[in-house]
Amino acid sequence: MKVVYVSYPQSGSGDVDVPASAENALGLRSFLESGGHELVATSETGEALDRELADAEVLITTPFWPVYLDEDRIKRAANLSLVITAGIGSDHTDPETAKQHGVTVAEVTGSNVVSVAEHNVLQILALVRNFVPAHMEAREGGWDVAKIAAPSHDLEGKTVGIVGLGAIGARTALRLKGFDVRMLYYANHRRSAGEEASLGVKYARLDTLVAESDVICLALPLMDGSQALFGPERLQAMKPGAWLVNTARGAIVDRDALVEAVGSGHLAGYAGDTWYPQPAPADHPWRSLPQGSEAMTIHCSGMTREAQDRIAEGVHEMLAAHLDGRAMPEDFIVVDPAA
Amino acid sequence: MKVVYVSYPQSGSGDVDVPASAENALGLRSFLESGGHELVATSETGEALDRELADAEVLITTPFWPVYLDEDRIKRAANLSLVITAGIGSDHTDPETAKQHGVTVAEVTGSNVVSVAEHNVLQILALVRNFVPAHMEAREGGWDVAKIAAPSHDLEGKTVGIVGLGAIGARTALRLKGFDVRMLYYANHRRSAGEEASLGVKYARLDTLVAESDVICLALPLMDGSQALFGPERLQAMKPGAWLVNTARGAIVDRDALVEAVGSGHLAGYAGDTWYPQPAPADHPWRSLPQGSEAMTIHCSGMTREAQDRIAEGVHEMLAAHLDGRAMPEDFIVVDPAA
Repeated sequence: MKVVYVSYPQSGSGDVDVPASAENALGLRSFLESGGHELVATSETGEALDRELADAEVLITTPFWPVYLDEDRIKRAANLSLVITAGIGSDHTDPETAKQHGVTVAEVTGSNVVSVAEHNVLQILALVRNFVPAHMEAREGGWDVAKIAAPSHDLEGKTVGIVGLGAIGARTALRLKGFDVRMLYYANHRRSAGEEASLGVKYARLDTLVAESDVICLALPLMDGSQALFGPERLQAMKPGAWLVNTARGAIVDRDALVEAVGSGHLAGYAGDTWYPQPAPADHPWRSLPQGSEAMTIHCSGMTREAQDRIAEGVHEMLAAHLDGRAMPEDFIVVDPAA
Repeated sequence: MKVVYVSYPQSGSGDVDVPASAENALGLRSFLESGGHELVATSETGEALDRELADAEVLITTPFWPVYLDEDRIKRAANLSLVITAGIGSDHTDPETAKQHGVTVAEVTGSNVVSVAEHNVLQILALVRNFVPAHMEAREGGWDVAKIAAPSHDLEGKTVGIVGLGAIGARTALRLKGFDVRMLYYANHRRSAGEEASLGVKYARLDTLVAESDVICLALPLMDGSQALFGPERLQAMKPGAWLVNTARGAIVDRDALVEAVGSGHLAGYAGDTWYPQPAPADHPWRSLPQGSEAMTIHCSGMTREAQDRIAEGVHEMLAAHLDGRAMPEDFIVVDPAA
């Protein structure tokens, strides 16, 4: 069996081993090769990858360095039967085409939900408290307290709207609960009254949430209904001076409308961890939002060391099941062509 | 009556009014002048200030731009009877000398405890999750996930040690409780079992806390017993790879020992909001800690807009009492020469 693992290169990390890099491949090499299987680990996502995929049975890819699997690509990978997302969020794979071609899509459900929830709180606090300029002032030798203080706020007492209240949204709410904020949420499936109370959240229609929130935090998957969900009109419907945090998927926010909403000062700031496409080109306009109005990170929220260990464990579990001809753990399956 | 207000200049904040700046002086000008009193508002902290203090009755100063009131200075301000700290932490005023010279020292107790507690959580997350390099990578056009992920961790499951569990430490604990961490604290006065349970903290001797904590957060005042409390030996006693956050007072941490502990890699990172002296000189070595090992801010944690409003309210309350000859609210008093 040939397995192709695609991830970011080990490059800048010096002598620290990063388990999920292409070079380290989640420790899969010895596991696979000792069983007589072949592992190709690469950072290629273009034609060189297509050549490897031509006879591969399993593809492992990650949201942080995604392989975009469209119809054309899936068609040409004639032997492909399993695509594993090393992480959560398999939107880089077209689900309909996968199903038609008998390809199972699975991801490591739950592997980095805590990691992303922590990143949500971090990016909310960074924006609301004006951290990035405060840090730059410290680095650059200044002491202009007025400049830093002017756009700096307490999170306490603010209304935080969480869009999507799955595993990540709920964990974000649990972490924000201690901050004495008012929390609204919108989701396709409303939680029970007991769950709402224990998370400290109140259900609202999306329009209400958008109109009333000082901070909006996106925690929903990218799917047909969420593509550019925050476009020009919805961004303009946000409160003047509000903040937007997006660790979900870059394409949920309209790229240029966001640049306009932040550039005009309508939004006080944007903190995104996710981009479209990824890797984001060097000239992606979200990299150069006005200083003091952003707290962007490259997609890393779900790539802590602890998350990588959980991802590795899940991928090993899936590959072992696949090799043994056992059923994949059901909670991991995103697309089941037999269903 | 002559009141002198000393604070940072309005300078870099553009056309946004910063209530606590020297120019805006917490809105005290109209309040005082309408009553026939004199207000001198300045950012001077040297000889020009001494000349103003020679005949002043009240001095209002702030921890963010402190007037260091030593014996020599208090002696020369012959009419001084009240020193108000616009904020919390009056360590810039020598308490013994104030008492001897009949000077009351008061601060706006509680005014920014929430603001600082939020900053503690922000700086903890920024260090543990490697936010500063992740942000720089986004700004600078890169996409080296391995470099960013290598030193990035979840806070979940870590041991956080809080040194000092007063108003700020307790609010920090309440905010960290949702993160599924183990929390230790050390304080002179141990909390009741019920309070410990509701804050989610466990008491430990300082040496134990230092030895067991992955993250240490300082939340104690600067006083005789805390001056350089974290010196060379205690920093070396911290766990290798641990993180240290200090929004309390810069002088609680030994300046050069910290540079050594971070520079050698023994500590994974330091995030301080407080410095000694303040304003920190442009060449203060904490400004140039190794990149990726710091998340410093200039002293601004307690200077959010909301904190400034609460500070202004407290200072007005104190001045009104003083002018009316009424007793100062007891919870505001730090040094009472009549006691």
